[in-house]
Amino acid sequence: MEKQIPGYTLGRPEVARSPVSLADFERIKNSVLFTAADLEALHQSEAVVADQVEAILDVWYGFVASQPQLLSSFSSPSGQPQAEYLAAVRKRFARWIIDTAHADYGQAWLDYQHEIGLRHYRAKKNLTDSARASAIVPFRDLFALVFPVTITLKPFLANKGHSPAQVEAMYTAWVKSCLLQVTLWSYPYIKDGDF
Amino acid sequence: MEKQIPGYTLGRPEVARSPVSLADFERIKNSVLFTAADLEALHQSEAVVADQVEAILDVWYGFVASQPQLLSSFSSPSGQPQAEYLAAVRKRFARWIIDTAHADYGQAWLDYQHEIGLRHYRAKKNLTDSARASAIVPFRDLFALVFPVTITLKPFLANKGHSPAQVEAMYTAWVKSCLLQVTLWSYPYIKDGDF
Repeated sequence: MEKQIPGYTLGRPEVARSPVSLADFERIKNSVLFTAADLEALHQSEAVVADQVEAILDVWYGFVASQPQLLSSFSSPSGQPQAEYLAAVRKRFARWIIDTAHADYGQAWLDYQHEIGLRHYRAKKNLTDSARASAIVPFRDLFALVFPVTITLKPFLANKGHSPAQVEAMYTAWVKSCLLQVTLWSYPYIKDGDF
Repeated sequence: MEKQIPGYTLGRPEVARSPVSLADFERIKNSVLFTAADLEALHQSEAVVADQVEAILDVWYGFVASQPQLLSSFSSPSGQPQAEYLAAVRKRFARWIIDTAHADYGQAWLDYQHEIGLRHYRAKKNLTDSARASAIVPFRDLFALVFPVTITLKPFLANKGHSPAQVEAMYTAWVKSCLLQVTLWSYPYIKDGDF
């Protein structure tokens, strides 16, 4: 599956080593109260979201399109949304949903989080897709998006007959996972030595 | 009340102007889906938390004390927790609970968020309390803490007889508010021009 998604390089040799160690990541997991039960809930969510990925992305893309400050990251300097760029990112975004649920928190996954961060940051923005969009996704919106992304996911988590408690557990695990991931993505934005 | 809390300077002339404008903040509020209903829910929570502040802080301080990577921000370079520093911060932390519920999102509030950021960052860490603790609160834990802080607040929000829907609304508004505030606090950590 991976080979069919342009620019999806998780586990590939060209992905650089994350500057955050697995031991560091373990401590951040403690700070966000991420437990074995969260891992289980994420894994449970994989089968739940697997056949709803496109519907989920419709909601998320609709939200981004409705917010000028978000759409600008996919737009040319003159403000024209880049349809090809939006479409190329969407394929990896679909895979990100599965990867988030799969929650393989190993070294290759950790390295790829850093790669995702670089692709939001000036270092690699636009590069993967040869896009001509804004030079950076501004930091200010990165964590704000955790809320709309997860709250709009919640109805999808409830679509497969799980109990309210199970849905809540999956939702909570997703919130923690997103906080963890966006923290890792932030690395390139942070002044040297301050992460 | 403010004058009785050492180092609490919201609204004081010595607080510098925030580099983030109210218009910028408005856009970040849109990104986190912060609405008039959230403002109302935060305001409703003020009376709920007002007489529970010390009990809430007991829980939060207990969590920080249980996590070495968090306690280290309150500890000397040799790892000794600084009791006076913890106590001094606690008084402002108590006021922060009220201010978060009060949700006065005006210029003075915005300026003070930047001041809070500077006090987490190298620029002003330890300065307010003449503490001899670590030189910086590392970025990595800032957003991770949004989860434990808000999830442990939830039972307190339910302590005053509100309906589950009202409790959920207050909780959700707190999550959004914390994401907004920590985003503002992050400003000094971010490379110039990348916020």
